[in-house]
Order: sequence, then C-alpha cells, then structure tokens
Amino acid sequence: MPLLSDTDERSLIDDFRSFIHTDGIIGPGDDAAILSNGTVASTDMVSFDRHFPAGMTYEQFGWYAAAVNFSDIASMGARPIGFLAGLALPDNLEKQNAYDIMSGISQCCEYCGTGVIGGDTKPGPGIIAGTALGSMDGRKPMLRSGANPGDIIAVTGPLGGPASGFLDIEYGLGLTSARNSLYVPIPKVAEGIALAETNAVTSCMDISDGLGTTLNTLCSQSNVGALVEWDFIPKDEHTMEAAESTGTPLRELLFDFGGEYELLFTADKNRLKQLYDSEVEFHIIGMVNDSDRVELLKDGERSVIGYGRY
Amino acid sequence: MPLLSDTDERSLIDDFRSFIHTDGIIGPGDDAAILSNGTVASTDMVSFDRHFPAGMTYEQFGWYAAAVNFSDIASMGARPIGFLAGLALPDNLEKQNAYDIMSGISQCCEYCGTGVIGGDTKPGPGIIAGTALGSMDGRKPMLRSGANPGDIIAVTGPLGGPASGFLDIEYGLGLTSARNSLYVPIPKVAEGIALAETNAVTSCMDISDGLGTTLNTLCSQSNVGALVEWDFIPKDEHTMEAAESTGTPLRELLFDFGGEYELLFTADKNRLKQLYDSEVEFHIIGMVNDSDRVELLKDGERSVIGYGRY
Repeated sequence: MPLLSDTDERSLIDDFRSFIHTDGIIGPGDDAAILSNGTVASTDMVSFDRHFPAGMTYEQFGWYAAAVNFSDIASMGARPIGFLAGLALPDNLEKQNAYDIMSGISQCCEYCGTGVIGGDTKPGPGIIAGTALGSMDGRKPMLRSGANPGDIIAVTGPLGGPASGFLDIEYGLGLTSARNSLYVPIPKVAEGIALAETNAVTSCMDISDGLGTTLNTLCSQSNVGALVEWDFIPKDEHTMEAAESTGTPLRELLFDFGGEYELLFTADKNRLKQLYDSEVEFHIIGMVNDSDRVELLKDGERSVIGYGRY
Repeated sequence: MPLLSDTDERSLIDDFRSFIHTDGIIGPGDDAAILSNGTVASTDMVSFDRHFPAGMTYEQFGWYAAAVNFSDIASMGARPIGFLAGLALPDNLEKQNAYDIMSGISQCCEYCGTGVIGGDTKPGPGIIAGTALGSMDGRKPMLRSGANPGDIIAVTGPLGGPASGFLDIEYGLGLTSARNSLYVPIPKVAEGIALAETNAVTSCMDISDGLGTTLNTLCSQSNVGALVEWDFIPKDEHTMEAAESTGTPLRELLFDFGGEYELLFTADKNRLKQLYDSEVEFHIIGMVNDSDRVELLKDGERSVIGYGRY
C-alpha cells in the first residue's frame, strides 16, 4: 500500500512527520519531545562522515555527539537526567579511539549533571545515535511556537565563533578558541533551566542550524515575523578577523553557518525584570512583529533573512 | 591518557561499562535503564547488514527495529510511553522502502500502545537506532539479578520458532509461520506488566540472545545456578520438523539461536497462585539452585547449558 506518491518531492523527514504520535505530548517540530510523564527526550545522530571536521579529536567527537542532544533538551528548559549512547563504530577502529569517544561522551554528560545510563554497540561506519533524557521538574517547557508580536528576541551569547572555526580549518588562521567552540560546543543547560524559570520566555530554540534558519523556523512555527538589528547581534571576538582574512561576508558568518549552541529565545517585554533577575547572560537582538517576514535592519536598510545552509 | 592497555582483551561493550553512570538508577547490565524519575529507557541498534534476513520486508525490518527495544523494557515490566527513531539510511534507498520502514516502526509502536515521538534521519548504511521509553507506574522493576535458589524458572511461550525460521530461510522448508516469528517478533508488553504486578517474579529477561545465553546471564547476575528439564521446555510446533529435515540437533535450535522474544523469568514458588491469577501464559522449565552451574536434565542425564551463539 503506497504511502507516498512517486511525484511527491517532500523530504524524508517531512514525510516521516505523518508517523509522529502527538497524542498527549509535545512535538513533533520542537527540539525535543515531552512524554506524558514529563520526561523530555531527544535523539540526534552524528557521523564520522559529516560531523568530524579536520583537527577534531575522538574525545571531542564523543563530547559533540552528547552535546548536540543535551542542547536540544536544554532549549526546552529541561534538566538532564540520563544519556543513552548507541555506537556503530568500524571494526578496524583502534580501541583507544573508541575509548576516547566514550570518554568524551561521558565528560559531556558529567558537565550536564548526568551520566551515560545505557547504550548499544554494533559494527558500523562511525555513527553515534545519542538520546538525551531530561526532566522539567515542574517548569513549563519552552517551545518554538510561543512567540508573540511585541516580544523581544534575544540570544544567550556571542555568535560566529563556530563559523570562524570552520574558516580556520579551511584557511589556517590560527584562531584556536574559535575552533574549540566548534569542536567542543557547550550545551546551555543552566541557561535553559533559568530561562524557563523566569516565566517570561515565550519561545526558545538552540541555534545549532545557524541564526538564519533558527529565526525562520521559530517565526514560522509561531506564525510571526521578526526584525533583527545588525548592531545588536553579539559577535564572537574572532568573527571579524575570520571574515576579513578570508573575504567572507560577516553576515554570512553570523547567519548562514550552523554549529552554534547558544539559545535564541523570545520573551514578553513586560517581564524583562524577571529575565534580568535570572542572571542569565543575554543580548536583545530584535523584536517579534505580526508580519510574515524575517528581516534584518542594517545601516538603515531592511533585507530578508533567509534560511542558512543547514 | 590511555584508558585501556593494548593487551586488554575485553570486548568494547565490557570496556564501556566503566563509563556507565549508576548513581540512583538501575543498570547497567539489565535490559533497560531506570531513571531517577521512574522512566525506563533502552536503546538498541539494528542494521541492514546484520538484521535483515532474506525474505524480510522493509516494513518488517522497521517493526523489528522497534520490537527489540520494546522487548527490553517489557522484560522489566514497563508500559511503553514513547519511541525515538534514529534512521541512518542509504541515500539511494527508494523512498517507498524508507517509508515502509517507518510504517513498520509505527505499527509496532501502536501494537505496544504508544507511538513515535521523535527521531532523526541522516545518511548512512542502513542502521536504525531505536530508543524505547516506558513507565513503571509504581510497579517494582523486574531485574536480572533477583533470582533465588528454590525459585521456579519459567518462559512465557514456546521456543524454537525463530530458529526454525532461520533454517527455513536456509533450506526452504515451507515453514511460513516460523519465518514470521523471526520477521515480526512480538514484544511481550502485556505479559511483562502483568508479571511485574504479581509481586511473585524475582527476575526477568527477554530471550533475544537465545535460551542458553539468557539462562547463563540471568544466573550469573543473580549468583545462582539452574537445572532445566528438557521435557518441560515448550517447543514451537515447527521446531521438531525443522530439526529433523535439516539434521540440526533440536537442542541447538532451542538453546543456541537468538531472536526469541518470549520472556524468561524466575518466581517465588510460594507465590505461584499470584502467577496463575495473572492469566499470563507460562511454562515452568526448571528450578533455580545454589550451585554455580546451569544444567539441563535430559533422559536422566545432566549436562552443562552453555552460552549460545549470541
């Protein structure tokens, strides 16, 4: 019984949405799912092929595999309570390398206040399927769909570091800390929990797909528009240098690359006091509006912010 | 910093146990982990390479990928509350085939009373990393480590069907229902819940690694021995035929093949009434003892039951 016509051009992941079970839980479409008992769960796969840039160590790859999953539950405001590691590693991988991967996973779990609670190992090409589990502890989850016109738009820290890291790998610019932000992303667990506790935040996502894609996804799921001000975007210290040395437009570095693990969120502008009281670092970069456009205001001119590369 | 010496011959999965976090949770070593909030979680990967026998459909492969995970949480007595599907599928896989896999996963979830709540898709060689999540609903989890000398040993249904299915694939015996038991394993969810509710069961495992390995694992983790009586083992209707037609020893079919998804459990012999009241089908196959041997009594003679192929 064909479930999909041959002429259907939607992507696999869109097709699969029809199989997603939504009865009584949050998702699909958010960074993580919420189960009927309040557990938050997210699974993401990373691979040697696609997520192992030059210069990365096996230990960093393991950290990365865990971090991307913890970032997904952090963006909902969940506290990590466990991690499952499915490892499909090549038979000829040196034991020490496999061990280093597991050590990296374990270190990231520890950073996030939890540990590896189970897993599976099978032969494979170098794929880690991680599952992060978390608890909301009574907090209301931050979704992608709650932004309202008039809300402020903010990010939890400077952007462009991982993009600069990519350029450093390509061009050898000597920007070690930028590379590290790419190799060892920090899941914003404490920030996510604190933001959810403010009751001021109306929507939240991590920026792993880049600022352009993230802004567009959040606005689309909230049925709102946005205006972001160029001068307000906090820029990683190396971003300007990476842009200038390589002739890459700074805008591209800030909007079109992925690998950022800061959080993007919107908040009720009448509750900014709660946000400041939370002591979470944040930078307001724009405002939600009731248009259907995601736009950038730069040098007095408006232009459309598109989806990035991811 | 080397975490493992070159001369160390332990398997990867044993090495990885040192990374497993045990603070406040059940596991490792059980079929599934139990989180601090009572959520039960298990992850298992299956692949085109190793788990896609001849004659299996993509839909059945999807079912299988979900079933092995639900079986793991069923053996603890958990009620399924969600499934995460990580799919690493070849770029050139026909869309219909990918769709059928997802449909099979979804059907198995529905059979288990839950659904796909999230997932991830990446290019890959054909690996499904499934994560089954469940709730104990206040029941005490059934572990592998609770068997006591004097307990009865039982299984929830006839064995040898999947092994006969393997032989059918190899020799073409026309044993369709045996093949189906291999292609479409039924996770014993209702049975696991009902057994956990009896408060008579002292330990439980699924038999996915075969009866020999399962008996040895359970006895080892419980620090007990066992004596199993050959005549008491319920045998699938096709097992004798498959053994005779192919010249395979019947004992091998019953003990050494994997792919069985009945549950093996031990229970307090003074609480058999609770077991019978549960209306779960079960067959007593032997007794737990205080020896360090797992033995079979057949035709009046005792012999050691070894680990099987899995």
